[in-house]
Amino acid sequence: MSTSTKEPSRTETIKTKAYGATNSIFNGLKRMEIERHRPQADEVHIEILYTGVCHSDLHQVKNDWKNTVYPCVPGHEIVGRIIEVGSTVRKFKVGDTVGVGCMIDSCGQCRPCQHGEENYCQGPVSWTATYNGPMKPDGSGANTFGGYSTNITVKESFVLRIPDGLDIKAAAPILCAGITTYSSLKHWNVKEGDRVGIVGLGGLGHMGVKLAKALGATVTVITTSKEKRADAEAMGAHEVLISTDSAAMKQHEASFDFILNTIPDAYDITDYVSLLDLDGTIVAVGLLGEYKKPLNNMEMATYRRTVAGSVIGGIAETQEVLDFCAQHNILPDVQMIKMQDINKAFDDLLDKEVRYRHVIDMQSLKDEA
Amino acid sequence: MSTSTKEPSRTETIKTKAYGATNSIFNGLKRMEIERHRPQADEVHIEILYTGVCHSDLHQVKNDWKNTVYPCVPGHEIVGRIIEVGSTVRKFKVGDTVGVGCMIDSCGQCRPCQHGEENYCQGPVSWTATYNGPMKPDGSGANTFGGYSTNITVKESFVLRIPDGLDIKAAAPILCAGITTYSSLKHWNVKEGDRVGIVGLGGLGHMGVKLAKALGATVTVITTSKEKRADAEAMGAHEVLISTDSAAMKQHEASFDFILNTIPDAYDITDYVSLLDLDGTIVAVGLLGEYKKPLNNMEMATYRRTVAGSVIGGIAETQEVLDFCAQHNILPDVQMIKMQDINKAFDDLLDKEVRYRHVIDMQSLKDEA
Repeated sequence: MSTSTKEPSRTETIKTKAYGATNSIFNGLKRMEIERHRPQADEVHIEILYTGVCHSDLHQVKNDWKNTVYPCVPGHEIVGRIIEVGSTVRKFKVGDTVGVGCMIDSCGQCRPCQHGEENYCQGPVSWTATYNGPMKPDGSGANTFGGYSTNITVKESFVLRIPDGLDIKAAAPILCAGITTYSSLKHWNVKEGDRVGIVGLGGLGHMGVKLAKALGATVTVITTSKEKRADAEAMGAHEVLISTDSAAMKQHEASFDFILNTIPDAYDITDYVSLLDLDGTIVAVGLLGEYKKPLNNMEMATYRRTVAGSVIGGIAETQEVLDFCAQHNILPDVQMIKMQDINKAFDDLLDKEVRYRHVIDMQSLKDEA
Repeated sequence: MSTSTKEPSRTETIKTKAYGATNSIFNGLKRMEIERHRPQADEVHIEILYTGVCHSDLHQVKNDWKNTVYPCVPGHEIVGRIIEVGSTVRKFKVGDTVGVGCMIDSCGQCRPCQHGEENYCQGPVSWTATYNGPMKPDGSGANTFGGYSTNITVKESFVLRIPDGLDIKAAAPILCAGITTYSSLKHWNVKEGDRVGIVGLGGLGHMGVKLAKALGATVTVITTSKEKRADAEAMGAHEVLISTDSAAMKQHEASFDFILNTIPDAYDITDYVSLLDLDGTIVAVGLLGEYKKPLNNMEMATYRRTVAGSVIGGIAETQEVLDFCAQHNILPDVQMIKMQDINKAFDDLLDKEVRYRHVIDMQSLKDEA
């Protein structure tokens, strides 16, 4: 394909290989065929090269959030190459290496959208998710299909530039794990000398460590996995605190300015609240559900502690973290897998066996008959 | 008594009438006799004129926080007149009208103390409470006795000046209810035009309404008590939201920048979290215990909401709120009672029948045989 001057019809579609879940009785992703439309004036068509495997992908295909529309093709950490651009596209050209994260559209009109925080879009259906989201911000249109596929069509304003010098094989996880942790660290003003705890050393956590370290913080990894100590230190952690060691946890009471909690399933947040010093904040970015136990305001109030949550980041900030990673030589630690191995990868995710993010080499799907 | 030039011995005591609880099987406060020491070099001796009745007083005498030392003489909203000063006292003289709030000492050395936040003192035993606190910041010394008594001896640096123009009969509740709400409003930067919710229209809540209004906020009172609507409006509330009306609560979803929750007993905080708009904060100042239900991070993260807690305020900020109240003609709404009616007052507190703070006229205790 080449740059088109005449607008293709939106009904003109491109058959696309994908892996997805067909229903909520989840028994693994299956090979399927989906269709992408040819790019409209403000859109680009991308050949997908690499897609990161996020814990959200697994939550979504299993319908953990009770909102999954089937068939569901996950994947929102996408790196690829532009193979066709719409007539009004100015930011990109065919051949550019680009990324797509968790969002492909938003209302563009609300206050957060106007302030570069599309991830908090207050339009009729909030932002449009890269997968499992209605195609139009007004809620109309078809379900969206994500990056577990060979190609995708996206509005240029939701496409990110992968900066030169960033290894494209490893960059994909920056588009969710990276921006999610970066946005929290920046919003809560983590800076030089701050005592930061990162709970959970997985896809998000390991990016959190690297980014917080690059921002000048003294980073402690808080984990149940003793065997991750050496990795944590190699990533820049100053200390590793084993959260199942109650004496060590007690010893670290009131000693953090900021804690980023990346655990993706229900946990007891009070275990971590007591680690915060005066005016400390704990932000949950992994969990999208209920905590196991209620907060105790005696623990909160006596240190004026804060508990908050955050989801991903805006488009401008996603470009910022990509550039920040290139500048600071930060890359996700990835394990490359084939599309056909996705179900084994999901098992590894549940078993905490990933070091530290799976990335699918999409050539494996292209090569599939 | 008059200003002393020769330092009295600390063992030289003054017999003092008081009301207190003798043990945890709480069956009402009883008349008792306590002793105050004569003021040391940096202390003043105060004849107590008025003492506010705080919900904490009831919590403490009932041992709700499992830390009560008996006998327990409550009272930490004290207004009185100085009748004797120590040799190095410069800030006050005999005859001055002064106040004492929740603290009478702190370590003075830690970072919070050095920054005027004695209420977050990180010394060995934190700050010394006006009642039920060890007399010395290092934890030694006797239990402390509060303002349900005729006189008290306090270090001058923990004594507040009651500004001219503030009605001394009504000023006492500023020393806890006032500073507690003011400190939160100021710390979280409540300003002109902010949409502020005040949950609970009691001692703290009604001060919260007046102070938030004076700071320029648009104030909504959130309460279970329909019959308090007219009062709320008279205090400056723009709107009254009945929290048991689920349709009204639904309608107010995501519409507040800041909510101050003054409910003193366990409640479900998730009822109020959903009222917060993007980047909104809810601060609990009444409860010192566990919430009824766990937070849901889906509700927190999707609006980057924040839950926090706060306790009272520092000494300098307490002077600030006293001056602010004088300047803005803000006074607590008080019902004057006699010391002998304290147990009936506690019943009213439990029955939500107080409009909006009881203040004990200490003449009633002085007159008691």
